[in-house]
Amino acid sequence: MIEARPRLVVGVDFGTLSGRAVVVRVEDGAELGSATHDYEYGVLESHLPDGTRLGPDWALQVPADYISVLRHAVPAALDAAGADPRQVVGIGTDFTACTMVPTTADGTPLNEVPAHAGDPHAYVKLWKHHAAQPQADRINALAAKRGESWLPRYGGLISSEWEFAKALQVLEESPAVYTAMEHWVEAADWIVWQLCGTYLRNACSAGYKGILQDGTYPTRDFLAELNPGFADFVADKIDRPVGSLGAPAGRLTRQAAEWTGLPAGIVVAVGNVDAHVTAPAAQSTAPGQMLAIMGTSTCHIMNGQILREVPGMCGVVEGGVTPGLWGYEAGQSGVGDIFNWFVSTQVPPAYVAEADQRGISIHEHLSDKAAAQAVGAHGLIALDWHSGNRSVLVDHELSGLVLGLTLATSPEDVYRALIEATAFGTRTIVEAFVDSGIPVDEFVVAGGLLKNPLLMQIYADVLGMPLSTIRSTQGPALGAAIHAAVAVGAYDDIHSASAAMGGVDRAVYQPVEDNVRAYDALYAEYRALHDHFGRGANDVMRRLRSIRRQALQGAAR
Amino acid sequence: MIEARPRLVVGVDFGTLSGRAVVVRVEDGAELGSATHDYEYGVLESHLPDGTRLGPDWALQVPADYISVLRHAVPAALDAAGADPRQVVGIGTDFTACTMVPTTADGTPLNEVPAHAGDPHAYVKLWKHHAAQPQADRINALAAKRGESWLPRYGGLISSEWEFAKALQVLEESPAVYTAMEHWVEAADWIVWQLCGTYLRNACSAGYKGILQDGTYPTRDFLAELNPGFADFVADKIDRPVGSLGAPAGRLTRQAAEWTGLPAGIVVAVGNVDAHVTAPAAQSTAPGQMLAIMGTSTCHIMNGQILREVPGMCGVVEGGVTPGLWGYEAGQSGVGDIFNWFVSTQVPPAYVAEADQRGISIHEHLSDKAAAQAVGAHGLIALDWHSGNRSVLVDHELSGLVLGLTLATSPEDVYRALIEATAFGTRTIVEAFVDSGIPVDEFVVAGGLLKNPLLMQIYADVLGMPLSTIRSTQGPALGAAIHAAVAVGAYDDIHSASAAMGGVDRAVYQPVEDNVRAYDALYAEYRALHDHFGRGANDVMRRLRSIRRQALQGAAR
Repeated sequence: MIEARPRLVVGVDFGTLSGRAVVVRVEDGAELGSATHDYEYGVLESHLPDGTRLGPDWALQVPADYISVLRHAVPAALDAAGADPRQVVGIGTDFTACTMVPTTADGTPLNEVPAHAGDPHAYVKLWKHHAAQPQADRINALAAKRGESWLPRYGGLISSEWEFAKALQVLEESPAVYTAMEHWVEAADWIVWQLCGTYLRNACSAGYKGILQDGTYPTRDFLAELNPGFADFVADKIDRPVGSLGAPAGRLTRQAAEWTGLPAGIVVAVGNVDAHVTAPAAQSTAPGQMLAIMGTSTCHIMNGQILREVPGMCGVVEGGVTPGLWGYEAGQSGVGDIFNWFVSTQVPPAYVAEADQRGISIHEHLSDKAAAQAVGAHGLIALDWHSGNRSVLVDHELSGLVLGLTLATSPEDVYRALIEATAFGTRTIVEAFVDSGIPVDEFVVAGGLLKNPLLMQIYADVLGMPLSTIRSTQGPALGAAIHAAVAVGAYDDIHSASAAMGGVDRAVYQPVEDNVRAYDALYAEYRALHDHFGRGANDVMRRLRSIRRQALQGAAR
Repeated sequence: MIEARPRLVVGVDFGTLSGRAVVVRVEDGAELGSATHDYEYGVLESHLPDGTRLGPDWALQVPADYISVLRHAVPAALDAAGADPRQVVGIGTDFTACTMVPTTADGTPLNEVPAHAGDPHAYVKLWKHHAAQPQADRINALAAKRGESWLPRYGGLISSEWEFAKALQVLEESPAVYTAMEHWVEAADWIVWQLCGTYLRNACSAGYKGILQDGTYPTRDFLAELNPGFADFVADKIDRPVGSLGAPAGRLTRQAAEWTGLPAGIVVAVGNVDAHVTAPAAQSTAPGQMLAIMGTSTCHIMNGQILREVPGMCGVVEGGVTPGLWGYEAGQSGVGDIFNWFVSTQVPPAYVAEADQRGISIHEHLSDKAAAQAVGAHGLIALDWHSGNRSVLVDHELSGLVLGLTLATSPEDVYRALIEATAFGTRTIVEAFVDSGIPVDEFVVAGGLLKNPLLMQIYADVLGMPLSTIRSTQGPALGAAIHAAVAVGAYDDIHSASAAMGGVDRAVYQPVEDNVRAYDALYAEYRALHDHFGRGANDVMRRLRSIRRQALQGAAR
């Protein structure tokens, strides 16, 4: 008797510097093998491959890098899994967002069209391309003035990272590229288009990044007032059918089958965004389960049964995380990158030498030293705004603060205070949801920072809640695979697929009662500073940014 | 014809870790030779020489160390000067303050009395002994309650470093030592007593540290209310004739002549305090000339013709700097020690390696990097309260703050912001004097920090005033020598001796108009934060100190 061979799905996660493929068993989500492939061009921040210089705050990518992931990471993952490709029944993907590809009518990226290859605007604008801030400012000012109904769905502010601001920058700085681009495509949808030949928008990025609310985009009238040449942007460049998350987008083309080594004709799932796709991998798709993907920054994803306009959230989108529920997103723009900045600029040689001697990272060494402290013993409070504040203040002109410094303050004191500040920032977000009538019943952590037990305990103590942790170390790729399993019809919906294939360890970190009480007092201090500097009582941070810009401009003259 | 050999005086400066003697020509102040002698015992902070443990915040010294300076540094300075001791006509001294020696009736330090040698209270309490804070708190609370007239002369707060708090600690913790001590002697007066056999108080420490105002000390009634056993403290332990600064205290004894190699019978000047004695060395004794002695902390000394109670000053004493004028003192408790803390705890290995490679100190390296910046380019504001605030807030529960941090903030950015913060602190003090009707016409800098040209230019730009600099690198010792020259009658008064023997370079650093304007804006931000955190709008710093103390106590249990 021949044993039935298990059905498999492949998930592919497209990150900032590399892509990762994972081969997953449909039945139980077992990750049988995975592989990563680094992008050849990575992030273009100073110049194009041909040497053309880029301005400050630019961040571009080359679409060929994404295809290389399909060609290398997918076959390597199949190899690692020891899987027969014929076992694979579907493929799902997720992408950074908002990452935008300007294309011709057939999806060819404009940087591959010789007439435009030397124009930076012909390249992919990566999520962290921040040079469209002037356009974002105008969008926000005009939307506020006109009282556009979609603005509160985004906590009152459209990001310079999103589709409209970036496109307006293309129009105003390179009319030739703007005219030539037949489509302005989320990379999450572009890669699906390459896999199955069908260009569908996915509900997640269309809602969170494309300002699609209640079935409509911002009006022609609004766009014309921004710039007359922008009036038809929606109809001309982005309006496409929208696919539900977990739905099939099409079937794998022969070309894509050749790239990946997968069978032509298998199901390709609708695209998705890396943070949002992680929710089912962490079994966190039920209303009230807040998933925090904690890395260089933190993204908070949660489903709710009702629509509430939570002040300072990034966005609320119907079906934005799973069909049939309101998907809420919030975020902290700086978390791990603050700790990285600290260890690379503010830690003295003796500490680095000690860490080397112990054979551990400087993060581990500082965490060990800080872990011995009682709550409050360092006497510090910090504000975690080194990279601005995404939620709930939505203000990237804010900046970091450390208060309570004395001649006895040690590096581990500041390191711990910075960890605590990010935990207080998370608590502020949780409270904003709760105060708006969206309960947060469970807090689940995914992402690289869950490896730091000190940080995790501090978060549990600050939130006063147990922390659950995702089981998979490759949450986004597993989440993409789960979406593929739903798309092939192996499960009724994302929730049941998540229950079978995702994994979470519940309540791994328990709050310690004494610490919770001690942190309540410190959180009150954080909130007082948060509101004082973040809500207009003293706008010193904004003034300092403006003084800084003038000083740097003056020095450059 | 035999040329007349010049008359000489010797100045001896008793510091925290060593003493320095300088041989000076009476005619013109030329420094002919100098020598230093390190204390054998230095500062006792953890235990006595016999191993007896000390509590936290203790700082003691051994009087024999001071005698060693007389025996070694004075002869070595004479040697270095190639001077015939018979040319020396007088000797002057200055000391750290408030540094207190408990003695028997004949001036023998109690630690040299076998019955008390094992009791820490029998030792010298150095200026930075901070373990009498509870006593100082009670003195302040009671004085405020009773409306004692002397309290405003000290900006509203008596320091734990001063005579009364330290003595009350002795009484309450070691009644045996308190009973045995016939005199509670400023080290500045004890050393003069050793030199000439006469115990006179000097007007400077009696006023600034001994609460002698308008000829009287705090009343018996007040002292009895503090502690019944303390009622007769003034009469029993400290009341002595007070000598004017620059007056002779007596003549060199045979014993002291033997120690020093100087002729017995030469004039010994009344004692003095290191900061105050520097004023004539820097030709800064006229009303309106503010002298800042800038080192680990900064002391501001200025004469005025009238009495004003300047909020937050350290003290105002008639004849406290020069007879016939009101001597004002203010201070910043942390300056150079903040920069030292920063470079030892917050500067990464690469910077230290670069400085090593350039063969310069890390301070110089950071200063070089920071000097290239335009004012405001770092986007930071700091509060310089890492060691508390002496003037004008008089609050050692305050702490440091850095605001404006981003992921682009570099070590030199923070370093420069800390320098600027101390300059803003100085400007706050200058403005407090001006606002109280005490004009500040000139700003003169002495002390180690004048070697940093970036710091000096920042101070000139922040103050909007030219900076003058003392010529001597051993200001206190030269100042002591000048006092000796006055005491021997070579000059009519300190002013004329200062004019002949002191030295200052006027207006060495000129404010740059653009920078002055730019710093006006940043100073306004500093003052807003200063008042917000320092004057009760948000007492977070005090609460954090209290939380810290509780956390450390809890952890120690």
